[in-house]
Amino acid sequence: MREERLRLAGLPALLKRPENPKGLLLVLHGLQGSKEHILGLLPGYAERGFALLAFDAPRHGEREGPPPSAKSPRYVEEVYQVALGFKEEALRVAEEAERRFGLPLYLAGGSLGAFVAHLLLSQGFRPRAALAFIGSGFPMKLPKGQVLEDPRVQALYEAPPALRGAGYGGVPLLHLHGTKDLIVPLERMEKTVEALRPHYPEGRLARFVEEGAGHTITPLMARVGLAFLEAWGEGA
Amino acid sequence: MREERLRLAGLPALLKRPENPKGLLLVLHGLQGSKEHILGLLPGYAERGFALLAFDAPRHGEREGPPPSAKSPRYVEEVYQVALGFKEEALRVAEEAERRFGLPLYLAGGSLGAFVAHLLLSQGFRPRAALAFIGSGFPMKLPKGQVLEDPRVQALYEAPPALRGAGYGGVPLLHLHGTKDLIVPLERMEKTVEALRPHYPEGRLARFVEEGAGHTITPLMARVGLAFLEAWGEGA
Repeated sequence: MREERLRLAGLPALLKRPENPKGLLLVLHGLQGSKEHILGLLPGYAERGFALLAFDAPRHGEREGPPPSAKSPRYVEEVYQVALGFKEEALRVAEEAERRFGLPLYLAGGSLGAFVAHLLLSQGFRPRAALAFIGSGFPMKLPKGQVLEDPRVQALYEAPPALRGAGYGGVPLLHLHGTKDLIVPLERMEKTVEALRPHYPEGRLARFVEEGAGHTITPLMARVGLAFLEAWGEGA
Repeated sequence: MREERLRLAGLPALLKRPENPKGLLLVLHGLQGSKEHILGLLPGYAERGFALLAFDAPRHGEREGPPPSAKSPRYVEEVYQVALGFKEEALRVAEEAERRFGLPLYLAGGSLGAFVAHLLLSQGFRPRAALAFIGSGFPMKLPKGQVLEDPRVQALYEAPPALRGAGYGGVPLLHLHGTKDLIVPLERMEKTVEALRPHYPEGRLARFVEEGAGHTITPLMARVGLAFLEAWGEGA
Protein backbone atom coordinates (compact mmCIF):
# COMPACT_ATOMS: atom_id res chain seq x y z
CA MET A 1 0.00 0.00 0.00
CA ARG A 2 1.22 3.45 -0.92
CA GLU A 3 0.18 6.91 0.12
CA GLU A 4 0.88 9.55 -2.42
CA ARG A 5 0.42 13.30 -2.67
CA LEU A 6 -0.40 14.50 -6.13
CA ARG A 7 -2.19 17.21 -8.06
CA LEU A 8 -5.28 16.38 -10.04
CA ALA A 9 -7.09 18.99 -12.10
CA GLY A 10 -4.66 21.39 -10.48
CA LEU A 11 -5.83 20.57 -6.95
CA PRO A 12 -3.92 19.10 -3.99
CA ALA A 13 -4.99 15.48 -3.61
CA LEU A 14 -4.13 12.43 -1.57
CA LEU A 15 -4.15 8.89 -2.91
CA LYS A 16 -3.98 5.69 -0.86
CA ARG A 17 -3.36 2.86 -3.23
CA PRO A 18 -3.14 -0.91 -2.74
CA GLU A 19 -1.02 -3.07 -5.04
CA ASN A 20 -3.73 -4.05 -7.49
CA PRO A 21 -6.75 -1.84 -6.95
CA LYS A 22 -10.08 -3.06 -8.24
CA GLY A 23 -11.74 0.33 -7.94
CA LEU A 24 -11.18 3.96 -7.07
CA LEU A 25 -13.22 5.60 -4.33
CA LEU A 26 -13.44 9.37 -4.63
CA VAL A 27 -14.02 10.72 -1.12
CA LEU A 28 -15.45 14.17 -0.43
CA HIS A 29 -14.81 15.64 3.01
CA GLY A 30 -17.12 17.88 5.02
CA LEU A 31 -17.06 21.40 6.34
CA GLN A 32 -13.90 22.14 8.35
CA GLY A 33 -12.51 18.82 7.12
CA SER A 34 -9.64 17.90 4.83
CA LYS A 35 -8.50 15.13 2.50
CA GLU A 36 -6.22 13.73 5.22
CA HIS A 37 -8.92 13.73 7.88
CA ILE A 38 -11.58 11.94 5.87
CA LEU A 39 -9.22 9.28 4.52
CA GLY A 40 -8.19 8.59 8.12
CA LEU A 41 -11.80 7.67 8.85
CA LEU A 42 -11.92 4.91 6.22
CA PRO A 43 -9.52 2.23 7.42
CA GLY A 44 -9.50 -1.12 5.69
CA TYR A 45 -10.68 0.09 2.29
CA ALA A 46 -7.30 0.04 0.62
CA GLU A 47 -6.58 -3.37 2.20
CA ARG A 48 -9.68 -4.67 0.48
CA GLY A 49 -8.73 -3.35 -2.90
CA PHE A 50 -10.06 0.17 -3.12
CA ALA A 51 -7.75 3.00 -4.04
CA LEU A 52 -8.89 6.04 -2.05
CA LEU A 53 -8.68 9.48 -3.53
CA ALA A 54 -9.51 12.72 -1.72
CA PHE A 55 -8.82 16.37 -2.44
CA ASP A 56 -9.32 19.56 -0.46
CA ALA A 57 -12.54 21.50 -0.97
CA PRO A 58 -12.41 25.23 -1.75
CA ARG A 59 -11.27 27.18 1.35
CA HIS A 60 -10.15 23.95 3.10
CA GLY A 61 -6.96 22.04 3.84
CA GLU A 62 -3.97 23.17 1.77
CA ARG A 63 -6.07 25.66 -0.16
CA GLU A 64 -6.50 29.30 0.65
CA GLY A 65 -8.92 29.59 3.58
CA PRO A 66 -10.41 30.06 5.94
CA PRO A 67 -13.56 27.87 5.74
CA PRO A 68 -16.87 29.73 6.13
CA SER A 69 -17.41 31.00 9.65
CA ALA A 70 -20.68 30.37 11.45
CA LYS A 71 -20.47 33.94 12.68
CA SER A 72 -20.94 35.36 9.20
CA PRO A 73 -24.45 36.54 8.23
CA ARG A 74 -23.68 34.90 4.90
CA TYR A 75 -22.54 31.63 6.46
CA VAL A 76 -25.12 29.42 4.74
CA GLU A 77 -24.55 31.05 1.38
CA GLU A 78 -20.80 30.63 1.76
CA VAL A 79 -21.21 26.97 2.75
CA TYR A 80 -23.16 26.16 -0.38
CA GLN A 81 -20.81 28.18 -2.54
CA VAL A 82 -18.10 25.88 -1.23
CA ALA A 83 -20.35 22.89 -2.01
CA LEU A 84 -21.00 24.06 -5.56
CA GLY A 85 -17.34 24.68 -6.20
CA PHE A 86 -16.45 21.31 -4.67
CA LYS A 87 -18.92 19.60 -6.97
CA GLU A 88 -17.46 21.16 -10.12
CA GLU A 89 -13.97 20.24 -9.00
CA ALA A 90 -15.03 16.69 -8.16
CA LEU A 91 -16.16 16.27 -11.76
CA ARG A 92 -12.81 17.43 -13.06
CA VAL A 93 -10.84 15.36 -10.55
CA ALA A 94 -12.91 12.26 -11.35
CA GLU A 95 -12.32 12.78 -15.06
CA GLU A 96 -8.58 13.15 -14.66
CA ALA A 97 -8.44 10.19 -12.26
CA GLU A 98 -10.29 8.08 -14.78
CA ARG A 99 -7.79 8.97 -17.49
CA ARG A 100 -4.83 8.40 -15.21
CA PHE A 101 -5.85 5.24 -13.40
CA GLY A 102 -8.59 3.73 -15.55
CA LEU A 103 -10.36 2.18 -12.55
CA PRO A 104 -14.07 1.70 -11.90
CA LEU A 105 -15.20 4.73 -9.92
CA TYR A 106 -17.04 4.80 -6.59
CA LEU A 107 -18.11 7.86 -4.62
CA ALA A 108 -18.32 8.70 -0.92
CA GLY A 109 -18.99 11.89 0.97
CA GLY A 110 -19.20 12.88 4.61
CA SER A 111 -21.55 15.58 5.90
CA LEU A 112 -21.30 18.48 3.40
CA GLY A 113 -19.38 16.03 1.20
CA ALA A 114 -22.44 13.77 1.27
CA PHE A 115 -24.56 16.67 0.09
CA VAL A 116 -22.08 17.22 -2.73
CA ALA A 117 -22.33 13.51 -3.59
CA HIS A 118 -26.10 13.98 -3.84
CA LEU A 119 -25.60 16.98 -6.08
CA LEU A 120 -23.32 14.96 -8.34
CA LEU A 121 -25.71 12.03 -8.56
CA SER A 122 -28.72 14.24 -9.21
CA GLN A 123 -26.85 15.82 -12.10
CA GLY A 124 -25.98 12.60 -13.84
CA PHE A 125 -22.62 11.61 -12.32
CA ARG A 126 -22.43 7.82 -12.48
CA PRO A 127 -20.18 6.00 -10.04
CA ARG A 128 -20.77 2.27 -9.53
CA ALA A 129 -22.07 2.94 -6.03
CA ALA A 130 -22.11 5.79 -3.53
CA LEU A 131 -21.92 6.29 0.23
CA ALA A 132 -23.49 9.25 2.01
CA PHE A 133 -22.05 9.41 5.52
CA ILE A 134 -23.85 11.62 8.08
CA GLY A 135 -25.43 13.77 5.41
CA SER A 136 -28.53 14.32 3.36
CA GLY A 137 -29.77 15.42 -0.03
CA PHE A 138 -31.29 18.60 1.36
CA PRO A 139 -29.45 21.80 2.26
CA MET A 140 -29.44 22.76 5.93
CA LYS A 141 -32.39 24.63 7.36
CA LEU A 142 -31.90 28.33 6.89
CA PRO A 143 -31.33 30.04 10.23
CA LYS A 144 -33.02 33.37 10.77
CA GLY A 145 -31.21 36.41 9.46
CA GLN A 146 -29.18 34.48 6.88
CA VAL A 147 -28.86 36.11 3.48
CA LEU A 148 -29.06 34.13 0.25
CA GLU A 149 -28.35 36.32 -2.73
CA ASP A 150 -26.40 33.96 -4.93
CA PRO A 151 -28.96 32.59 -7.41
CA ARG A 152 -27.04 29.30 -7.64
CA VAL A 153 -27.47 28.80 -3.89
CA GLN A 154 -31.09 29.89 -4.05
CA ALA A 155 -31.59 27.22 -6.71
CA LEU A 156 -30.32 24.54 -4.29
CA TYR A 157 -33.02 25.54 -1.85
CA GLU A 158 -35.70 25.65 -4.52
CA ALA A 159 -34.77 22.29 -6.03
CA PRO A 160 -32.64 20.24 -3.61
CA PRO A 161 -30.93 17.17 -5.05
CA ALA A 162 -33.14 14.81 -3.01
CA LEU A 163 -36.16 16.13 -4.88
CA ARG A 164 -34.55 15.39 -8.22
CA GLY A 165 -34.42 11.63 -7.76
CA ALA A 166 -34.98 10.86 -11.43
CA GLY A 167 -31.51 12.25 -12.04
CA TYR A 168 -29.80 9.63 -9.85
CA GLY A 169 -30.25 6.88 -12.40
CA GLY A 170 -30.63 4.31 -9.65
CA VAL A 171 -26.93 4.47 -8.70
CA PRO A 172 -26.65 2.22 -5.59
CA LEU A 173 -26.65 4.55 -2.62
CA LEU A 174 -26.21 3.86 1.08
CA HIS A 175 -26.79 6.43 3.79
CA LEU A 176 -25.01 5.97 7.11
CA HIS A 177 -26.20 8.00 10.05
CA GLY A 178 -26.27 8.24 13.83
CA THR A 179 -29.44 8.71 15.87
CA LYS A 180 -27.84 11.50 17.89
CA ASP A 181 -26.57 13.59 15.04
CA LEU A 182 -27.18 17.20 16.07
CA ILE A 183 -25.72 18.73 12.90
CA VAL A 184 -27.61 16.75 10.26
CA PRO A 185 -30.62 15.32 12.10
CA LEU A 186 -31.48 11.71 11.27
CA GLU A 187 -34.84 12.91 10.05
CA ARG A 188 -33.19 14.82 7.18
CA MET A 189 -31.57 11.63 5.96
CA GLU A 190 -34.84 9.73 6.30
CA LYS A 191 -36.66 12.39 4.31
CA THR A 192 -33.97 12.08 1.65
CA VAL A 193 -34.52 8.33 1.33
CA GLU A 194 -38.26 8.88 1.25
CA ALA A 195 -37.91 11.38 -1.60
CA LEU A 196 -35.60 9.13 -3.60
CA ARG A 197 -37.60 5.94 -3.01
CA PRO A 198 -40.00 6.28 -5.97
CA HIS A 199 -37.07 6.62 -8.34
CA TYR A 200 -35.12 3.62 -7.16
CA PRO A 201 -35.38 -0.01 -8.21
CA GLU A 202 -35.42 -2.62 -5.43
CA GLY A 203 -32.29 -3.17 -3.39
CA ARG A 204 -30.19 -0.21 -4.58
CA LEU A 205 -31.10 2.33 -1.93
CA ALA A 206 -30.44 1.60 1.73
CA ARG A 207 -29.69 3.12 5.10
CA PHE A 208 -27.61 2.12 8.08
CA VAL A 209 -28.57 3.77 11.34
CA GLU A 210 -26.33 3.51 14.39
CA GLU A 211 -27.96 4.11 17.75
CA GLY A 212 -26.29 6.73 19.89
CA ALA A 213 -23.83 7.96 17.28
CA GLY A 214 -23.49 11.71 16.80
CA HIS A 215 -22.23 13.69 13.82
CA THR A 216 -19.25 11.48 13.20
CA ILE A 217 -18.20 8.75 10.78
CA THR A 218 -17.81 5.81 13.14
CA PRO A 219 -15.61 2.75 12.49
CA LEU A 220 -18.82 0.71 12.25
CA MET A 221 -20.22 2.99 9.56
CA ALA A 222 -16.93 2.75 7.69
CA ARG A 223 -17.07 -1.06 7.72
CA VAL A 224 -20.67 -1.20 6.60
CA GLY A 225 -19.96 1.29 3.84
CA LEU A 226 -17.14 -0.88 2.56
CA ALA A 227 -19.42 -3.93 2.54
CA PHE A 228 -21.94 -1.96 0.48
CA LEU A 229 -19.34 -0.90 -2.09
CA GLU A 230 -18.12 -4.47 -2.41
CA ALA A 231 -21.65 -5.59 -3.20
CA TRP A 232 -21.52 -3.51 -6.37
CA GLY A 233 -18.02 -4.44 -7.45
CA GLU A 234 -16.82 -6.40 -10.45
CA GLY A 235 -18.50 -9.75 -10.76
CA ALA A 236 -20.77 -9.01 -7.78
CA MET B 1 -13.43 -24.97 3.59
CA ARG B 2 -15.36 -28.05 4.69
CA GLU B 3 -19.04 -28.79 4.99
CA GLU B 4 -19.86 -31.36 7.58
CA ARG B 5 -23.02 -33.02 8.85
CA LEU B 6 -22.93 -33.78 12.54
CA ARG B 7 -25.11 -34.20 15.59
CA LEU B 8 -24.90 -31.68 18.39
CA ALA B 9 -26.93 -32.07 21.56
CA GLY B 10 -28.54 -34.97 19.71
CA LEU B 11 -29.79 -32.75 16.87
CA PRO B 12 -29.00 -32.84 13.15
CA ALA B 13 -26.65 -29.98 12.40
CA LEU B 14 -24.64 -28.58 9.52
CA LEU B 15 -21.21 -27.00 9.89
CA LYS B 16 -19.36 -24.97 7.27
CA ARG B 17 -15.83 -24.53 8.45
CA PRO B 18 -12.86 -22.58 7.03
CA GLU B 19 -9.30 -23.71 7.71
CA ASN B 20 -8.61 -21.55 10.76
CA PRO B 21 -11.89 -20.15 11.99
CA LYS B 22 -11.75 -17.07 14.21
CA GLY B 23 -15.32 -17.43 15.40
CA LEU B 24 -18.41 -19.61 15.25
CA LEU B 25 -21.70 -18.19 14.03
CA LEU B 26 -24.74 -20.07 15.27
CA VAL B 27 -27.50 -19.49 12.72
CA LEU B 28 -31.18 -19.99 13.49
CA HIS B 29 -33.52 -20.49 10.55
CA GLY B 30 -37.10 -19.33 10.23
CA LEU B 31 -40.49 -20.94 9.87
CA GLN B 32 -40.59 -23.44 6.98
CA GLY B 33 -36.83 -23.11 6.75
CA SER B 34 -33.96 -25.49 7.37
CA LYS B 35 -30.29 -25.47 8.33
CA GLU B 36 -29.31 -25.96 4.68
CA HIS B 37 -31.49 -23.16 3.41
CA ILE B 38 -30.32 -20.52 5.85
CA LEU B 39 -26.63 -21.34 5.46
CA GLY B 40 -27.10 -20.98 1.71
CA LEU B 41 -28.14 -17.37 2.30
CA LEU B 42 -24.88 -16.43 4.01
CA PRO B 43 -22.18 -16.69 1.36
CA GLY B 44 -18.73 -15.34 2.10
CA TYR B 45 -18.84 -15.81 5.87
CA ALA B 46 -16.71 -18.92 5.96
CA GLU B 47 -14.27 -17.34 3.48
CA ARG B 48 -13.79 -14.51 5.95
CA GLY B 49 -13.09 -16.78 8.88
CA PHE B 50 -16.44 -17.61 10.41
CA ALA B 51 -17.43 -21.20 10.97
CA LEU B 52 -21.18 -21.43 10.37
CA LEU B 53 -23.31 -23.77 12.41
CA ALA B 54 -27.02 -24.38 11.89
CA PHE B 55 -29.42 -27.03 13.11
CA ASP B 56 -33.04 -27.86 12.30
CA ALA B 57 -35.74 -26.38 14.52
CA PRO B 58 -38.42 -28.64 16.03
CA ARG B 59 -40.80 -29.87 13.28
CA HIS B 60 -38.42 -28.68 10.54
CA GLY B 61 -35.84 -30.10 8.15
CA GLU B 62 -34.69 -33.61 9.03
CA ARG B 63 -36.79 -33.67 12.16
CA GLU B 64 -40.27 -35.04 12.48
CA GLY B 65 -42.68 -32.55 10.95
CA PRO B 66 -44.65 -31.02 9.57
CA PRO B 67 -44.10 -27.37 10.50
CA PRO B 68 -47.14 -25.54 11.93
CA SER B 69 -49.83 -24.98 9.33
CA ALA B 70 -51.39 -21.54 8.92
CA LYS B 71 -54.72 -23.34 8.59
CA SER B 72 -54.66 -24.50 12.20
CA PRO B 73 -56.66 -22.47 14.73
CA ARG B 74 -53.66 -22.99 16.97
CA TYR B 75 -51.16 -21.84 14.37
CA VAL B 76 -49.73 -18.98 16.40
CA GLU B 77 -49.45 -21.09 19.53
CA GLU B 78 -47.72 -23.83 17.58
CA VAL B 79 -45.30 -21.34 16.00
CA TYR B 80 -44.18 -20.04 19.37
CA GLN B 81 -43.97 -23.52 20.82
CA VAL B 82 -41.52 -24.21 18.02
CA ALA B 83 -39.69 -20.98 18.93
CA LEU B 84 -39.49 -21.89 22.60
CA GLY B 85 -38.20 -25.37 21.84
CA PHE B 86 -35.71 -23.96 19.33
CA LYS B 87 -34.42 -21.55 21.95
CA GLU B 88 -33.79 -24.31 24.51
CA GLU B 89 -32.05 -26.40 21.90
CA ALA B 90 -29.94 -23.47 20.76
CA LEU B 91 -28.61 -23.15 24.30
CA ARG B 92 -27.63 -26.83 24.36
CA VAL B 93 -26.16 -26.74 20.86
CA ALA B 94 -24.17 -23.60 21.68
CA GLU B 95 -22.83 -25.21 24.84
CA GLU B 96 -21.74 -28.36 23.07
CA ALA B 97 -20.26 -26.37 20.19
CA GLU B 98 -18.29 -24.30 22.66
CA ARG B 99 -16.88 -27.46 24.26
CA ARG B 100 -16.10 -29.04 20.92
CA PHE B 101 -14.68 -26.11 18.98
CA GLY B 102 -13.72 -23.57 21.65
CA LEU B 103 -14.39 -20.61 19.36
CA PRO B 104 -15.80 -17.17 20.17
CA LEU B 105 -19.53 -17.41 19.58
CA TYR B 106 -21.71 -15.17 17.40
CA LEU B 107 -25.44 -15.46 16.80
CA ALA B 108 -27.71 -14.87 13.81
CA GLY B 109 -31.36 -15.58 13.16
CA GLY B 110 -33.74 -15.09 10.26
CA SER B 111 -37.43 -14.29 10.70
CA LEU B 112 -38.67 -16.62 13.48
CA GLY B 113 -35.00 -17.41 14.07
CA ALA B 114 -34.44 -13.69 14.72
CA PHE B 115 -37.20 -13.76 17.30
CA VAL B 116 -35.49 -16.74 18.93
CA ALA B 117 -32.22 -14.77 18.92
CA HIS B 118 -34.07 -12.00 20.76
CA LEU B 119 -35.39 -14.52 23.25
CA LEU B 120 -31.90 -15.83 23.85
CA LEU B 121 -30.38 -12.38 24.34
CA SER B 122 -33.18 -11.24 26.64
CA GLN B 123 -32.52 -14.28 28.80
CA GLY B 124 -28.83 -13.68 29.23
CA PHE B 125 -27.26 -15.54 26.31
CA ARG B 126 -24.02 -13.75 25.50
CA PRO B 127 -22.59 -14.05 21.99
CA ARG B 128 -20.01 -11.47 20.91
CA ALA B 129 -22.51 -9.95 18.50
CA ALA B 130 -25.86 -10.86 16.97
CA LEU B 131 -27.70 -10.38 13.68
CA ALA B 132 -31.48 -10.27 13.43
CA PHE B 133 -32.45 -10.71 9.79
CA ILE B 134 -36.02 -9.82 8.77
CA GLY B 135 -37.35 -10.29 12.28
CA SER B 136 -38.26 -8.52 15.47
CA GLY B 137 -38.29 -8.88 19.22
CA PHE B 138 -42.08 -9.00 19.33
CA PRO B 139 -44.29 -11.99 18.57
CA MET B 140 -46.58 -11.64 15.54
CA LYS B 141 -49.90 -9.89 15.89
CA LEU B 142 -52.51 -12.35 16.99
CA PRO B 143 -55.02 -12.96 14.19
CA LYS B 144 -58.66 -13.22 15.20
CA GLY B 145 -59.83 -16.60 16.32
CA GLN B 146 -56.38 -17.86 17.34
CA VAL B 147 -56.22 -19.74 20.61
CA LEU B 148 -53.35 -19.29 23.08
CA GLU B 149 -53.66 -21.72 25.94
CA ASP B 150 -50.03 -22.57 26.53
CA PRO B 151 -48.97 -20.35 29.44
CA ARG B 152 -45.41 -20.21 28.11
CA VAL B 153 -46.68 -18.74 24.84
CA GLN B 154 -49.02 -16.40 26.70
CA ALA B 155 -45.97 -15.20 28.63
CA LEU B 156 -44.24 -14.26 25.36
CA TYR B 157 -47.16 -12.00 24.50
CA GLU B 158 -47.27 -10.50 27.97
CA ALA B 159 -43.53 -9.84 28.15
CA PRO B 160 -41.96 -9.91 24.68
CA PRO B 161 -38.17 -10.03 24.54
CA ALA B 162 -37.98 -6.50 23.08
CA LEU B 163 -39.56 -5.16 26.25
CA ARG B 164 -36.93 -6.86 28.37
CA GLY B 165 -34.00 -4.88 27.05
CA ALA B 166 -32.11 -4.87 30.34
CA GLY B 167 -31.55 -8.59 29.80
CA TYR B 168 -29.60 -8.08 26.56
CA GLY B 169 -26.50 -6.84 28.37
CA GLY B 170 -25.69 -4.53 25.47
CA VAL B 171 -24.68 -7.41 23.17
CA PRO B 172 -23.99 -5.73 19.80
CA LEU B 173 -27.08 -6.27 17.70
CA LEU B 174 -27.84 -5.40 14.09
CA HIS B 175 -31.28 -5.67 12.52
CA LEU B 176 -31.50 -6.10 8.77
CA HIS B 177 -34.84 -5.52 7.13
CA GLY B 178 -36.59 -4.70 3.87
CA THR B 179 -39.10 -1.88 3.46
CA LYS B 180 -41.54 -4.19 1.66
CA ASP B 181 -41.57 -7.02 4.18
CA LEU B 182 -45.18 -8.18 4.35
CA ILE B 183 -44.54 -10.92 6.93
CA VAL B 184 -42.65 -8.95 9.56
CA PRO B 185 -43.47 -5.32 8.81
CA LEU B 186 -40.54 -2.89 9.05
CA GLU B 187 -42.42 -1.07 11.76
CA ARG B 188 -42.13 -4.10 14.09
CA MET B 189 -38.37 -4.00 13.75
CA GLU B 190 -38.31 -0.26 14.33
CA LYS B 191 -40.43 -0.65 17.46
CA THR B 192 -37.99 -3.29 18.64
CA VAL B 193 -35.03 -0.93 18.28
CA GLU B 194 -36.99 1.81 20.00
CA ALA B 195 -37.73 -0.46 22.95
CA LEU B 196 -34.12 -1.62 23.26
CA ARG B 197 -32.58 1.83 22.80
CA PRO B 198 -32.66 2.93 26.46
CA HIS B 199 -30.76 -0.20 27.45
CA TYR B 200 -27.98 0.07 24.92
CA PRO B 201 -24.70 1.97 25.10
CA GLU B 202 -23.71 4.03 22.05
CA GLY B 203 -22.82 2.22 18.86
CA ARG B 204 -23.87 -1.32 19.75
CA LEU B 205 -27.39 -1.31 18.36
CA ALA B 206 -28.01 -0.61 14.69
CA ARG B 207 -30.30 -1.25 11.77
CA PHE B 208 -29.85 -1.72 8.07
CA VAL B 209 -32.89 -1.04 5.95
CA GLU B 210 -32.99 -2.03 2.30
CA GLU B 211 -35.52 -0.22 0.13
CA GLY B 212 -37.83 -2.48 -1.83
CA ALA B 213 -36.75 -5.75 -0.23
CA GLY B 214 -39.47 -8.12 0.94
CA HIS B 215 -39.36 -10.90 3.52
CA THR B 216 -36.08 -12.30 2.35
CA ILE B 217 -32.44 -12.27 3.42
CA THR B 218 -30.84 -10.49 0.47
CA PRO B 219 -27.17 -10.82 -0.54
CA LEU B 220 -26.72 -7.17 0.48
CA MET B 221 -28.09 -7.86 3.97
CA ALA B 222 -25.76 -10.86 4.24
CA ARG B 223 -22.73 -8.71 3.37
CA VAL B 224 -23.66 -5.96 5.78
CA GLY B 225 -24.27 -8.50 8.53
CA LEU B 226 -20.82 -9.96 8.01
CA ALA B 227 -19.26 -6.48 8.24
CA PHE B 228 -21.08 -5.95 11.53
CA LEU B 229 -19.83 -9.24 13.00
CA GLU B 230 -16.29 -8.41 11.95
CA ALA B 231 -16.51 -5.12 13.82
CA TRP B 232 -16.86 -7.08 17.06
CA GLY B 233 -14.22 -9.69 16.37
CA GLU B 234 -10.93 -10.34 18.09
CA GLY B 235 -8.79 -7.27 18.26
CA ALA B 236 -11.54 -5.10 16.80
